[in-house]
Amino acid sequence: MRKGRVTIPTDASFVEGTKIIADKWGADAVRDCDGTVLPDNAAELADKVYNTYFVIRGDNEWGEAHPEEWQHAVLMSRRVTAAESKLAIDIAEGYYAAQLKPDAGSQRFWVVVDRTSGQRVKDWEFDEKTNEVAFKSVPFHEYTVSYMATSLWDPVQMYNYITNDWHCEKQRMYDPCYPLTAEYIKRHLKEWCDAHPETNVVRFTTFLYQFSLIFNTYGKEKYVDWFGYTMSASPKMLDDFAAEYGYSLDCEDIADNGMYNNPFRVPSRKFLDYMDFVERRVTAAVKELTAITHAAGKEAMMFLGDCWIGAEPYGDYFPELGLDAVVGSVGGGVTVRMLSEIPGVKYREGRFLPYFFPDTFYKGNDPTKELNRNWLTARRALMRKCLDRIGFGGYLSLAAQFPDFIDRAAEICDEFRAIYDCVSGGKPYSALTVAVLNCWGKKRSWMSFMVAHELWYQQIYSYQGILEALSGLPVNVRFISFDDVKNGIDKDIDVIVCAGDMGTAFSGGEMWRDEKIVTAVKKWVHDGHGFIGVGEPTALDNGGRCFALADVLGVDLERGFTLSEDKYNIEKKEHFITADVASDIDFGEGTKNIYALPGTDVLDITFSDRFVRKVNVGEVNLAANSFGKGRGVYIAGLPYSFTNARLLYRAMLWSAGKENLLDKAFSSNPDTECNYYPDMKQYAVLNNTAAQAETEFFDINGKKSRLSLKPHEIRWIRA
Amino acid sequence: MRKGRVTIPTDASFVEGTKIIADKWGADAVRDCDGTVLPDNAAELADKVYNTYFVIRGDNEWGEAHPEEWQHAVLMSRRVTAAESKLAIDIAEGYYAAQLKPDAGSQRFWVVVDRTSGQRVKDWEFDEKTNEVAFKSVPFHEYTVSYMATSLWDPVQMYNYITNDWHCEKQRMYDPCYPLTAEYIKRHLKEWCDAHPETNVVRFTTFLYQFSLIFNTYGKEKYVDWFGYTMSASPKMLDDFAAEYGYSLDCEDIADNGMYNNPFRVPSRKFLDYMDFVERRVTAAVKELTAITHAAGKEAMMFLGDCWIGAEPYGDYFPELGLDAVVGSVGGGVTVRMLSEIPGVKYREGRFLPYFFPDTFYKGNDPTKELNRNWLTARRALMRKCLDRIGFGGYLSLAAQFPDFIDRAAEICDEFRAIYDCVSGGKPYSALTVAVLNCWGKKRSWMSFMVAHELWYQQIYSYQGILEALSGLPVNVRFISFDDVKNGIDKDIDVIVCAGDMGTAFSGGEMWRDEKIVTAVKKWVHDGHGFIGVGEPTALDNGGRCFALADVLGVDLERGFTLSEDKYNIEKKEHFITADVASDIDFGEGTKNIYALPGTDVLDITFSDRFVRKVNVGEVNLAANSFGKGRGVYIAGLPYSFTNARLLYRAMLWSAGKENLLDKAFSSNPDTECNYYPDMKQYAVLNNTAAQAETEFFDINGKKSRLSLKPHEIRWIRA
Repeated sequence: MRKGRVTIPTDASFVEGTKIIADKWGADAVRDCDGTVLPDNAAELADKVYNTYFVIRGDNEWGEAHPEEWQHAVLMSRRVTAAESKLAIDIAEGYYAAQLKPDAGSQRFWVVVDRTSGQRVKDWEFDEKTNEVAFKSVPFHEYTVSYMATSLWDPVQMYNYITNDWHCEKQRMYDPCYPLTAEYIKRHLKEWCDAHPETNVVRFTTFLYQFSLIFNTYGKEKYVDWFGYTMSASPKMLDDFAAEYGYSLDCEDIADNGMYNNPFRVPSRKFLDYMDFVERRVTAAVKELTAITHAAGKEAMMFLGDCWIGAEPYGDYFPELGLDAVVGSVGGGVTVRMLSEIPGVKYREGRFLPYFFPDTFYKGNDPTKELNRNWLTARRALMRKCLDRIGFGGYLSLAAQFPDFIDRAAEICDEFRAIYDCVSGGKPYSALTVAVLNCWGKKRSWMSFMVAHELWYQQIYSYQGILEALSGLPVNVRFISFDDVKNGIDKDIDVIVCAGDMGTAFSGGEMWRDEKIVTAVKKWVHDGHGFIGVGEPTALDNGGRCFALADVLGVDLERGFTLSEDKYNIEKKEHFITADVASDIDFGEGTKNIYALPGTDVLDITFSDRFVRKVNVGEVNLAANSFGKGRGVYIAGLPYSFTNARLLYRAMLWSAGKENLLDKAFSSNPDTECNYYPDMKQYAVLNNTAAQAETEFFDINGKKSRLSLKPHEIRWIRA
Repeated sequence: MRKGRVTIPTDASFVEGTKIIADKWGADAVRDCDGTVLPDNAAELADKVYNTYFVIRGDNEWGEAHPEEWQHAVLMSRRVTAAESKLAIDIAEGYYAAQLKPDAGSQRFWVVVDRTSGQRVKDWEFDEKTNEVAFKSVPFHEYTVSYMATSLWDPVQMYNYITNDWHCEKQRMYDPCYPLTAEYIKRHLKEWCDAHPETNVVRFTTFLYQFSLIFNTYGKEKYVDWFGYTMSASPKMLDDFAAEYGYSLDCEDIADNGMYNNPFRVPSRKFLDYMDFVERRVTAAVKELTAITHAAGKEAMMFLGDCWIGAEPYGDYFPELGLDAVVGSVGGGVTVRMLSEIPGVKYREGRFLPYFFPDTFYKGNDPTKELNRNWLTARRALMRKCLDRIGFGGYLSLAAQFPDFIDRAAEICDEFRAIYDCVSGGKPYSALTVAVLNCWGKKRSWMSFMVAHELWYQQIYSYQGILEALSGLPVNVRFISFDDVKNGIDKDIDVIVCAGDMGTAFSGGEMWRDEKIVTAVKKWVHDGHGFIGVGEPTALDNGGRCFALADVLGVDLERGFTLSEDKYNIEKKEHFITADVASDIDFGEGTKNIYALPGTDVLDITFSDRFVRKVNVGEVNLAANSFGKGRGVYIAGLPYSFTNARLLYRAMLWSAGKENLLDKAFSSNPDTECNYYPDMKQYAVLNNTAAQAETEFFDINGKKSRLSLKPHEIRWIRA
């Protein structure tokens, strides 16, 4: 049995069991987890020992001693409508008093906004006793206060504390933005390294600033943004920013009318400046920590989560951090690719599901099912760009009680190593290069449409499916920004995908008012490329036309202003794109009120039972349109499924005019997928299901043969 | 048998049959129709003879002789994306050459617009031979030409001509804006009156300008707006406008980026000026025609349709027209009220359905069903404000072949007269006064959400249901504008209803940025009134808050910018508003992504099968919220049904804090409705269905009794 590339959790109370499972799985690293302690002889269990390290929390002695260096967060009060000409807003109302407390010392950054007039209120007073901001109001105007609060308690520890009914100390969060803590975090790490000779890998969880995670009055989550920068702000941070940039940011710049510059917002110049500033601050501090780690003979590993703000893995400064590795949770193909493509580190590890916790590992449940589901979803992405390592987390002793699980995980570990050997041996064949276009571009590669890490939201799953599909399709995937478009779309790109709700950073919003962007994309499509829009792509609140690229996509969104224009193009046509569709296509939440322009091919349309007419009815879900030598495809929504991944692949090929590539290195059954590794002279045909699958396999020359694949099988075929 | 208040069609070939049916139905007026000719002895058939009269078409001799006075229309060319730096747009492309031809003489009004930059193109040339407008273009910008065309053929006659395969002359449309025609139309009417002594009522079909009705290349409807003013424009009209207003309108002011200032648009100042100007022009011309009619001893009746543009029945100038009567088609309660409340005329007539045409009156079909459906829908509105007359149209000889139909229509005529006698005897009891708020206010009373007269559109039926429900509910109904709000909401109004899609004139669009409007409405609700929002009421593309009155309604629309804010308020509650709801409520198209603010009562919420969480899921369909002493109610959509009418009634009572009025003059079964006529000391309990209905009747003092109503029955009860 091959060994290596696998990390398992261990615990002081499960040493012998760890040895057995480590052997079965070929694990070469052990780690500690929340609620476990590494055994003293951890180094005997595996080649490498990972040890969790917290930079800005965990040392409450330091924390309690330096309240003036605690972390902060910018918050917005609830919205209050004045009934009279005086108003007092309790700015802490709705927030969890144990987490956040208004910082009276930061008042110079606070902003009271009259949301009805859009004006700022100049004269106001804060009463520290009542937490009230009082001012003269215009009756029936709505007001908010954007302010700064001190973080009293680390929200991740707090969450575990509340959830698991812990009674340990509440961990403070100290801010290395301040001078004493800046020195302290280096000193502490040095000491810690000295005190942990058995540790090979310092698993930073994570660095300096927590993603936005704010709790409500009842200690339940109130606000979560995995990309949020609001907990990085502090008086010192904003002062330093002003000193460097020559202009000041205030709390409203950060609070952003309660939207906190979340990634769905078309980013403002101010926020981009602020992000860049925080990134550089974090980079400067962390590179010293990694240097200390290396000096102690250990590796530095970043956990992509918790306090990862400012350490943007696709940002310009990331390679400067000097990290050896990144580890993150894997929920599917997107998170695999988000991890596996991170530049500037030596290796990338994915922590797979299920987590070994009692919520899954209880009597009567079959955790192997979740293991298989997670593995199959992630595996297709590994086939494109493999992680360097996989691992698990939680209580290994719990998993040990499920022998089927242990056996299946062992198979998976072997399969992972086989995939790694092939995929790391040379770039897999790609039929196309696809660019996902949004306001974030490369900086948020594989990070589109996410709110809370990997969590399902009704408003996003119909878009997330695009990336999930792309993560395993035989195409190169790029993420480009509107600046990239203005600077000239790269020659090798075949297809651009634009997806998202109107006005968001993902569909482009105001960017589409820039005639340079509009004309650059239109010319590029006209010259013979493909453009795929999903949801409300290129949408503007313009009136007569809603989609800036309606002429390319061949459809537009009826916003109620063009109902008088008769719509006759409602007949569904057969098409290359839908040739593999067996039953109804799942468009997820879909998009209402889409109609086809004359000349467009309607490939799917929904008619309601209420319809009594043969004109001006139906909502187009899928359409194909020619534009010059290029082509546009519109899709109303694309939740991930095998069928939808195939649909997207066909749509991309068609839009790029490369339909002839379909039956090259291809497996016909949509439950299966084929990857081809020219350097390794290998094909891999995946059965993505738990059932037997029959398929026709086409080699790179189009030569066909029949395959019968076992459940979950990867069939390796020599080229 | 009672006689009167009923008009029937007749035909020279069906004189004896007309007499029999006139007798059965108690008809006191006969009329001609499309395709029929009045018999010479028409006056012997009834007290009154109506005769159709066309003002601006029908006399092709005049038309052919005065091509310089033909009517015009402002059109927008199709949108063309330039591929090169020169572009030529065939501006007639897509239009029906037999209907409209570019008028080269009107070029001073034409506008070429670069829709990508928003700029106007100054230098362009028109080639009359090719219909092409040529100019220098920026590659991949989109261009349109807004221009004026000459109307070659009346579109209503054209429609009948094409539909019925006629081979008669194509009727020209001459424009009384021009001097010769202005004199001619008076002369012609005088002569016509002299030549038609048997005619008592000149049924004008209609006056000067056709509502927008534009056909495509294939002679099929391309653009229809029952309220559209684009066919009133002409070089003379625009010149005269400029002379009076001191500023000029051009074709783009009318074409409005292809939206032609349709009623869904928040009206611009320019368009309101133009409407007012056209209304005054039409009024001045028509009052001379009515004077001529009266001088000839005849009555002047307006058909509310076809060329009714500029004769707005709820406009300021309408009473000046000097009309005796208005007649219009009745499709349900809304059209009844639209007709029955028109001020400034002596009587109002509704033409009921079905029309006596072979599409309904064919062997094997039961036209009585449509008769009953139409009658029951309209009847509840008649109970609130009765028409003065009813009538039918088409071939009476065809209807005569269906004896059941003739008998049922006779019953209906009797029932109508009974209703008329009661309702005209005094105002019915109203529990509340409700104001529908939109940009049009009183001017478009009972005209909201309409595209083509009475036609079903997917985007409007969920709003039209509100007015249909209101048309028969025991409430006073007003239509108010945002100016009315600014000038002070009338004291007697209990509830305001705001309904429509975001940005439209019906939901208010930009009006809600006016802090005077926002604060006026909020204060008014806070003081103890009700506000009901349907669809996307008060919606603005604002970011953090979408509904300007979110605090009143207790809900907001998630536009993708506040996904990070956790939404916990997803539990459905029982409520006064939904107490009569037996099964699922029909919200029609509904509204996606509505969430409840904390503290709001969620009365209906949709959960998808895909949901896996207990937070941030569900789409709120119905919610109730307190705001000061007042209340807000949100409804996602309200297609008309008996249940929804009841729901709306309860919502209005609750929002106004008048729940105690529910069981006063009330019939409990939602299939039934009660009206109370204090002056007549009568109750009328309607069974709106074709089935027996059991109900509890409550008199005005709340005294309860059980009723069993026959199908279609009106139970008259003495008070």
